[in-house]
Amino acid sequence: MTEAATARAPGGAQAVRRALDVLHCFHDNGPDLSASDLARRLELSVSTAHRLARTLLGAGFLEQDPRTSRYRLGPSVTELGRLSYHQRGLHLAAPELADLAERTGATTDLALRSGPHAVIVAGGSVTPKVGLRRPLHSTALGKVLLAWARPGEGGPDSLPPLPAFTDRTIVEPAALRAELARVRADEYALNDGESAYGVRTLAVPVLDGAGHARFALAVRATPSVITPERTDWLLTQARSCARALEVLLLSPAERRPPAR
Amino acid sequence: MTEAATARAPGGAQAVRRALDVLHCFHDNGPDLSASDLARRLELSVSTAHRLARTLLGAGFLEQDPRTSRYRLGPSVTELGRLSYHQRGLHLAAPELADLAERTGATTDLALRSGPHAVIVAGGSVTPKVGLRRPLHSTALGKVLLAWARPGEGGPDSLPPLPAFTDRTIVEPAALRAELARVRADEYALNDGESAYGVRTLAVPVLDGAGHARFALAVRATPSVITPERTDWLLTQARSCARALEVLLLSPAERRPPAR
Repeated sequence: MTEAATARAPGGAQAVRRALDVLHCFHDNGPDLSASDLARRLELSVSTAHRLARTLLGAGFLEQDPRTSRYRLGPSVTELGRLSYHQRGLHLAAPELADLAERTGATTDLALRSGPHAVIVAGGSVTPKVGLRRPLHSTALGKVLLAWARPGEGGPDSLPPLPAFTDRTIVEPAALRAELARVRADEYALNDGESAYGVRTLAVPVLDGAGHARFALAVRATPSVITPERTDWLLTQARSCARALEVLLLSPAERRPPAR
Repeated sequence: MTEAATARAPGGAQAVRRALDVLHCFHDNGPDLSASDLARRLELSVSTAHRLARTLLGAGFLEQDPRTSRYRLGPSVTELGRLSYHQRGLHLAAPELADLAERTGATTDLALRSGPHAVIVAGGSVTPKVGLRRPLHSTALGKVLLAWARPGEGGPDSLPPLPAFTDRTIVEPAALRAELARVRADEYALNDGESAYGVRTLAVPVLDGAGHARFALAVRATPSVITPERTDWLLTQARSCARALEVLLLSPAERRPPAR
């Protein structure tokens, strides 16, 4: 849609989408951006980027560095993020993940799906340096979220072209579909050096009553910790944690029926 | 502005503001809301509320319960919230706050200002039940954020009428202005049963180089822990923690110059 068409969009829906896109810009482009940066990233005129940024600034969704005039995510984002984190019960997950990490000697992560990404929302391996988003196709977390996708989330065919991170990354859509069939059959996903060499990850779903993955739980370590001999034991530990997280993170009405 | 005027607002700024207002609705009105709830809270037509909600849903800022069609904050909010939490360095604050709590035997909180609220973003007393927002006028955290307000944040005269939570709550604007003058002079704020009986809180600012409070740090306990005799010692502990948080949360260029 051209800029001229924006004003004609019913109820300003296009302007709302663009404003939300401005917020997402701060993912991959560092913590502070100028109006020109935003315009370039979103292919908008600088004046449109300015106008969107001023509106977001006025509502506290952006803040501005008075020295540089560059924008950062604002206090409303932090505030709503804390609210949503607590409303999802994610503060309850940390002790379970810490316990699993201690028992297994591995790093543990919990992720949810946000569009085409697995987003790590709790756990031990999150640092601002590595970022919180992970590609779906090259991670065990992402394979789980794809294999048990919720309605409307989109399957493997909805993904953009699959970039390679190592020579083990699955980059062919047909190969990814076959891999997801294996994940569903085995009830776990493996990432064996597909994101980075020397890192092996097992992931299992936190399933809701409709059989969809609401979260993915990963156990990540070097191949010397996650050996083929230890895989069954590690999966038992991870599934036990996933079952506890079902109880902590899902309401009774959302959960799976009790096991027979 | 009437609904009919919305389409004429330049670049859909009114629609953007309304969409952001929809997100803030989830603060005080429970975790899930119907389109009618949103329309009522925001004084919009149900069709406008529907349209805003669908746009937010499409961008992952809301999600919808398939059983009830009610809306909740979506994964993009959780994701951007985690990003902003890490970009602000707030994950670095937890060990400092835990250490201060252990040394003082009190609960410790860190808050930032979001519009007319103090929002607790790290610390020990946050539970989903009590909420993360606090009024400015009846809390030590809020008094600190008002006393050293950043440019554009608004002083005590910008606040709506001040509700009483106990018979100690400051409800007169003139009394609040006098209290803030005392806070600036003494370099700390006290909340002595003004939010709830039997709770006493001391708060100090985390100041930037321009002398504005970027965060407020509180030590909260019963009056038997926060006695007049212990106040100076507690303030020394809190200020030491605040100084550490200046280093952890502010960039070198944002910090105060070194003490002589």
